[in-house]
Amino acid sequence: MKLGSLKAGGRDGTLVVVSRDLRRAVPAAQAAATLQGALDRWAEASPILAGIADRLEAGLLPNALALEPAMLAAPLPRAYQFVDGSAYVVHVELVRRARGVELPPSFWRDPLMYQGGSDGFLGPTDPIPLASEDWGIDFEAEVAVITDDVPMGVGTAAAAAHIRLVLLLNDISLRNLIPAELAKGFGFVQSKATSSFAPVAVTPDELGPAWRDGKLHRPLLSFRNGEPFGRPDAGTDMVFDFPALIAHAARTRRLGAGTIIGSGTVANRDPAVGASCIAERRTRELLADGRATTPFLRFGERVRIEMLDDAGASLFGAIDQAVVRYEPPA
Amino acid sequence: MKLGSLKAGGRDGTLVVVSRDLRRAVPAAQAAATLQGALDRWAEASPILAGIADRLEAGLLPNALALEPAMLAAPLPRAYQFVDGSAYVVHVELVRRARGVELPPSFWRDPLMYQGGSDGFLGPTDPIPLASEDWGIDFEAEVAVITDDVPMGVGTAAAAAHIRLVLLLNDISLRNLIPAELAKGFGFVQSKATSSFAPVAVTPDELGPAWRDGKLHRPLLSFRNGEPFGRPDAGTDMVFDFPALIAHAARTRRLGAGTIIGSGTVANRDPAVGASCIAERRTRELLADGRATTPFLRFGERVRIEMLDDAGASLFGAIDQAVVRYEPPA
Repeated sequence: MKLGSLKAGGRDGTLVVVSRDLRRAVPAAQAAATLQGALDRWAEASPILAGIADRLEAGLLPNALALEPAMLAAPLPRAYQFVDGSAYVVHVELVRRARGVELPPSFWRDPLMYQGGSDGFLGPTDPIPLASEDWGIDFEAEVAVITDDVPMGVGTAAAAAHIRLVLLLNDISLRNLIPAELAKGFGFVQSKATSSFAPVAVTPDELGPAWRDGKLHRPLLSFRNGEPFGRPDAGTDMVFDFPALIAHAARTRRLGAGTIIGSGTVANRDPAVGASCIAERRTRELLADGRATTPFLRFGERVRIEMLDDAGASLFGAIDQAVVRYEPPA
Repeated sequence: MKLGSLKAGGRDGTLVVVSRDLRRAVPAAQAAATLQGALDRWAEASPILAGIADRLEAGLLPNALALEPAMLAAPLPRAYQFVDGSAYVVHVELVRRARGVELPPSFWRDPLMYQGGSDGFLGPTDPIPLASEDWGIDFEAEVAVITDDVPMGVGTAAAAAHIRLVLLLNDISLRNLIPAELAKGFGFVQSKATSSFAPVAVTPDELGPAWRDGKLHRPLLSFRNGEPFGRPDAGTDMVFDFPALIAHAARTRRLGAGTIIGSGTVANRDPAVGASCIAERRTRELLADGRATTPFLRFGERVRIEMLDDAGASLFGAIDQAVVRYEPPA
């Protein structure tokens, strides 16, 4: 099934079950008022949600809403936790090589992961407000999962059963703020802006054979101002699958229901598929030509991120956003 | 006023107004079911809460509960955001000096801050479950504030008005996991365990003259197995006040209501006042004697963190916890 959150109803939105074709939605208050509420008691809520989804697909809910992407917030409009891995190590290796730094061999065994902000996310078509183009505005197209409650010290095999929903996200990054912040060693605070999410969260079973081995096996499509930018397959070159990322995050603490675990920027070794962020394209330019020519985003530019099934239908709906100038308070 | 969350009522507990002497509590459902709910609509909820607090102090609520610390969860049992600064730069300087590393001059101007986990906190008397003593189990006694909604790009002067509540916390740290994790540059994931909080969150006005200049001016008392460990004044040697920490966190994104901003380990330049964590005491031992002799915590050991007013009464109630052995799932 596919779940979303209407912007109506408060800070956490209103939980809706969305049709497979993303055209219709029905509130699901019988299950829970919000998606976080459903995740808090998933064992009871999910069968009710599945029943609604079945009736919706069968055409038995004629009062379903006609859904427009702008009606939707992020599936979790705010979350208690977002940790983001760097599972596509080829991306990390490329960026380091451009800086003349060798990749530590441990990076192939021990996931790189950071604690991200989760107190508010942008909806799929919300503008991206930022105060300065000088920050080096970039997108990062990623896959993510939402877990239920995960016990501390969970093993990788057991972690797979805690994956409840799959998402797409844009982990908006401010490239020119990153070097100084990472040099301090404490991770990202200012150099990651508010992230945005595709319209719906999808259960693994709904993804069929595209979801296997703890990975999502489909190309992740990125567009800049309507032009194709990247189409790496999210199931290729993912060195750490989602269960491994969950086990890493849960080594010394439990993870609360509704935890979002990101894959990091999806990247393939094959340069023909392009990149899921501008920084990686710039890195390839630098390595090939000695200089990076693709600029970071400017106000008014648009980013679109989407994943299609075999038949060309959108699985999660599209992230489709413009960067806009933000005036800070006086 | 003083606010807490009973463990009853679900994952977010039940909001209670607590008497000044911490002995009695009354549910405050007229204002909000949970503290997060009150923070989400603070302008409407806080006058109702203040009215309850007045009636409670006046002895007009004879049905108030007799409060025991074990009845309480953390004031926010889970939160949408926790960012933790290192505002007592003397602590950072000491730790670096012990490693033979000079403090970058920028650390006196630009706050060190990391994004912490917030998906679940320990209550004030909950045991601290950890799987291995080899991780180097340490406490960090800190002050924190909770904000309402903070606009992106807020200035330091305007940030002060967004402080709604003040807290004490134990930022439990796994010292032997920190060097490898910080070397990766992405901050803390495994090397910070679940944090715990003192029983009540207190409004700045309730703290009287102890709250001024965006800092809390009282000694923060730490005890290990009942023995005094440290008593640095939280208002002394705090290089970045809370408004400055809020402005730093909000530079490139808004902060959602209920954001917790930590001070970092409270530390004074004066060695006579002791330390708010074992690592700092070990650092002073290393610098003085060439070796650190105070061990990190072992299973069964207790940590107590508290702050008293002029008359010796507890302002926030005490964090009083034992470290216990945790068996990971098979």
